[in-house]
Amino acid sequence: MGKKCVMTPVEEIDLSAVKYQPQNISAPHLTGLGLRLFVWLVKTPLIGSIILSILKKQNNLNKILRCTEIPEKPMFRPEFPPQAPEIGVAVFGENDEPITRVEKSFGCLRSYDPNQRWHENSPPFLYWTIRDFAHAYRSMLATPSAVAENIIAIVEEYNNKKPPMPLLISFSAEEVRKQAAASTQRFAEGNSLSILDGIFMAIKDDIDCYPHPSKSGTSWLHNARVVKKDAVCVSRLRSCGVILIGKANMHELGMGTTGNNPLHGTTRNPHSFDRYTGGSSSGPAALVASGLCSAAVGTDGGGSIRIPSSLCGIVGLKATYGRIDMKGSVCDCGTVEVSSPLAATVEDAMIVYAAMAGSSLDDRISLRPSPICLPDLSSANSSDVLRSMRLGKYSEWFNDVYSTEISSKCEDILNRLAEIFGCSITEIVLPELHELQTAHVVSIGSESLCALSPDCEDGRDTELSLDTQVSLALFRSFTAADYVAAQRLRRRIMYYYMEAFKKVDIIVTPTTGITAPKISTSSLKNGESNYVITSYLMRFVLAGIFWAFLLYLFLLGMIKKDFLLACN
Amino acid sequence: MGKKCVMTPVEEIDLSAVKYQPQNISAPHLTGLGLRLFVWLVKTPLIGSIILSILKKQNNLNKILRCTEIPEKPMFRPEFPPQAPEIGVAVFGENDEPITRVEKSFGCLRSYDPNQRWHENSPPFLYWTIRDFAHAYRSMLATPSAVAENIIAIVEEYNNKKPPMPLLISFSAEEVRKQAAASTQRFAEGNSLSILDGIFMAIKDDIDCYPHPSKSGTSWLHNARVVKKDAVCVSRLRSCGVILIGKANMHELGMGTTGNNPLHGTTRNPHSFDRYTGGSSSGPAALVASGLCSAAVGTDGGGSIRIPSSLCGIVGLKATYGRIDMKGSVCDCGTVEVSSPLAATVEDAMIVYAAMAGSSLDDRISLRPSPICLPDLSSANSSDVLRSMRLGKYSEWFNDVYSTEISSKCEDILNRLAEIFGCSITEIVLPELHELQTAHVVSIGSESLCALSPDCEDGRDTELSLDTQVSLALFRSFTAADYVAAQRLRRRIMYYYMEAFKKVDIIVTPTTGITAPKISTSSLKNGESNYVITSYLMRFVLAGIFWAFLLYLFLLGMIKKDFLLACN
Repeated sequence: MGKKCVMTPVEEIDLSAVKYQPQNISAPHLTGLGLRLFVWLVKTPLIGSIILSILKKQNNLNKILRCTEIPEKPMFRPEFPPQAPEIGVAVFGENDEPITRVEKSFGCLRSYDPNQRWHENSPPFLYWTIRDFAHAYRSMLATPSAVAENIIAIVEEYNNKKPPMPLLISFSAEEVRKQAAASTQRFAEGNSLSILDGIFMAIKDDIDCYPHPSKSGTSWLHNARVVKKDAVCVSRLRSCGVILIGKANMHELGMGTTGNNPLHGTTRNPHSFDRYTGGSSSGPAALVASGLCSAAVGTDGGGSIRIPSSLCGIVGLKATYGRIDMKGSVCDCGTVEVSSPLAATVEDAMIVYAAMAGSSLDDRISLRPSPICLPDLSSANSSDVLRSMRLGKYSEWFNDVYSTEISSKCEDILNRLAEIFGCSITEIVLPELHELQTAHVVSIGSESLCALSPDCEDGRDTELSLDTQVSLALFRSFTAADYVAAQRLRRRIMYYYMEAFKKVDIIVTPTTGITAPKISTSSLKNGESNYVITSYLMRFVLAGIFWAFLLYLFLLGMIKKDFLLACN
Repeated sequence: MGKKCVMTPVEEIDLSAVKYQPQNISAPHLTGLGLRLFVWLVKTPLIGSIILSILKKQNNLNKILRCTEIPEKPMFRPEFPPQAPEIGVAVFGENDEPITRVEKSFGCLRSYDPNQRWHENSPPFLYWTIRDFAHAYRSMLATPSAVAENIIAIVEEYNNKKPPMPLLISFSAEEVRKQAAASTQRFAEGNSLSILDGIFMAIKDDIDCYPHPSKSGTSWLHNARVVKKDAVCVSRLRSCGVILIGKANMHELGMGTTGNNPLHGTTRNPHSFDRYTGGSSSGPAALVASGLCSAAVGTDGGGSIRIPSSLCGIVGLKATYGRIDMKGSVCDCGTVEVSSPLAATVEDAMIVYAAMAGSSLDDRISLRPSPICLPDLSSANSSDVLRSMRLGKYSEWFNDVYSTEISSKCEDILNRLAEIFGCSITEIVLPELHELQTAHVVSIGSESLCALSPDCEDGRDTELSLDTQVSLALFRSFTAADYVAAQRLRRRIMYYYMEAFKKVDIIVTPTTGITAPKISTSSLKNGESNYVITSYLMRFVLAGIFWAFLLYLFLLGMIKKDFLLACN
């Protein structure tokens, strides 16, 4: 008796009395033999249950999920109340052709000056933006085929590096040449498809891109799940003339935040080869950060785009849930994942997002997404919009990072934003962040496990990396009632964010609570399990900045690139 | 290896190749000491898991939930595509006052002839319909206070019967007299509120009706969950002048289909005292069937209104999910339960439904319910509408009953409907009925368990009936991934029904696969666990006749009462 707790209904929570709980995760850091032994123990029937019980008790999981009366109804998928139209944006139709949307997005950008790029000391194509490529192709400064040869040479060189830098899990020089030749011919004939024609992009290995297999970073998933055509978002990009260079490396099954992948090799951070890129979209981030692609498509259910984008110094967007049709993605059945772009600049992310966006028919009925829109940066009064932005900051959370270097840098940026553009900064409170993390791990874990169960029952789980096996053992320990409790928590959390967004337009946080972690040699062969690092990497990514993202783009679109890199 | 099965995507299922699988459930029938021993075993850590594994294996549960690749996305709550307006119906506003809706529903009924009721040999008030009472009050033939005294006397007499007939769990003669006096006064002053003024109704013990406690058939739930006001649907009835006589008995926590309740006593079938009423709304059905109330309010998540209505020979409606605001019900957080009326006639069910209906604000956003409507029986062309009805029958399922007595009786009725009214009968196929049952038990079980978990962690589960404890042990064995798999199955099942409803307006089945089971003496003290009987009782109630119900009402509203009783 006496174990039961009762939560106050959300509407009655007094925000001024909420105390921030520093986020401390208890879990062992394991590599090599220790990890192997742990996996064996955790999968042994009785012992495994006991170990998981201890770990879950240390992290209060069962207290939250089983002993707490949560007065709210479950919210199984994000529900957004009808949203007022935003100011300073261009609105797109759900049924517009991708090419039409790309054209319209192009009209949202500020004017392009090729002289900024093509001056005396400009490098051959490193960090060319989409508009740089578009200009070069149209001015005969380059052809897609010529660029393709450069990319093919570099990918092959990277693969042969010691240690290898496995950016792509599936790559075919022939496929790239074929697409590039077709694009080159379109330009020669004056029939280019869109500003994205001839733009090179990579697709994360958990999104279908025909004829490549989708392994999702495993050794076997492509046999269980055969790719017959492009995912919807990939086919949209392809219809705009995008050249798809192959399937980018990733943390196996998306179940990790570092990008460590013992099977296909661990992608290294282009800015520092002994550090992680972050994950799970490790390959997409590294490809963009190394200048090989202007953009890539990743998936994000718990930071999988935003973490590697941050650690690699590029722009990562997680669109609103349901905003982009997930058909043809390995994680097309979850309640948190979205496919979205990674790019070197905000403007490029905008163009790629415009091409990819569009909800599935089912989601249009059940989620009622608000219209697709992009900030109109070309508008004369765009800086007025920027001036009116109210930035929300939960300082105790903002500062709960591994090193104050991160929080003070972000603080500086906020102050500069306020000074230069006149945005206001408002203190906010977001209660129950630990409950948020609990609800998230139960939701994403159970949904992933459900998709994998038939193959696991067939013994495939023993072919997965050790850290994935640890995750799956944890996910198996969640009961159906835990899942429902997590959805009740989701309703609370959504309420808190909705309330915060009544006061502010954007919630600002650092993207991660730690800078790129070092790769230990011992982790390369068998991986590693480090939930403490994961906790720092994921600290802010569940913030659910769902409807503020366009304003965020807007905001960042106004500022210089080095500033942006520091921000992200 | 080789355990994995792969389901064909629903759109590719060839209905002509679907084979009906007779529904055989394997589980022991337990009462008395055997049940007590089984509960002890099933709750013992290792042994319990083994027993449940065997039972689940016998019933293919894990094969369906864990070894099968289900291509569809989860559907967590019923999603209905936008529906075309129905013909011959009156449409109601979601925001109309209950009194306005009751008045409008009254206008949908055929004209009333008091001479049919008040003839020489009419009994004092047994089986009076709502319009009979309304007429009597307005013609000074009776007053609510006089009726109240009759009811109070009978309830008290029933409680003192040997064996007792515990119709109500909470009853206060004083409360009834107070409400009746107020109503009598309104009539005396010519200020009656609506046609429902002075109508006596009972509320199932899992729906809040102030000042009564809500025990949901347990001994302790009212302490853990204090009632402070009426449930939304109850307050709507009260605002129309309904006299609420108290909290009707039920199968504990709604987790059973017989109505057996060792704690508060097992309600007996008014038509045969040695037989069950069916459950879980045992008290509401018995109160209506014994003529004490014109109507009652129950909850139905898996037949809990329809089964006892059928076994007691009255009308039971399960409204479309989300159609009636569940706030203030013990099961207000599930994805299947709806509060709805039980009544002695279809017309009474219509009036009570009109008063109770109205979605919650949340559901209006996320479920987008189609407008509330009722068949306009007063319309001159209502028999034309009836003639155009297409009845869908899945013969193999229809005939899969305990005794052919049931199926041939129902068959006769269908033939008479075709003969008299000219409705057409079309053969249909509904695949995956066993999967439907599996998805249902996982969904309703997990959602119920989630609500009870904090109290169970506090040791309250040992105070529950033994059969409830068996159910909870089963529900605890479902994993979070099982729950997600069940929701994928839900999308398939919904698809099959949507497809069927393109061809037919109504799916016709017997309501239960067995007639009222006998109550064994050994089950009275400690209850019983009999999943085989449960399977027969629940055979047809998951049919999800969601949007056909109005047409169903319409259809039945045209025919005579004895005919109706045989139908239901």
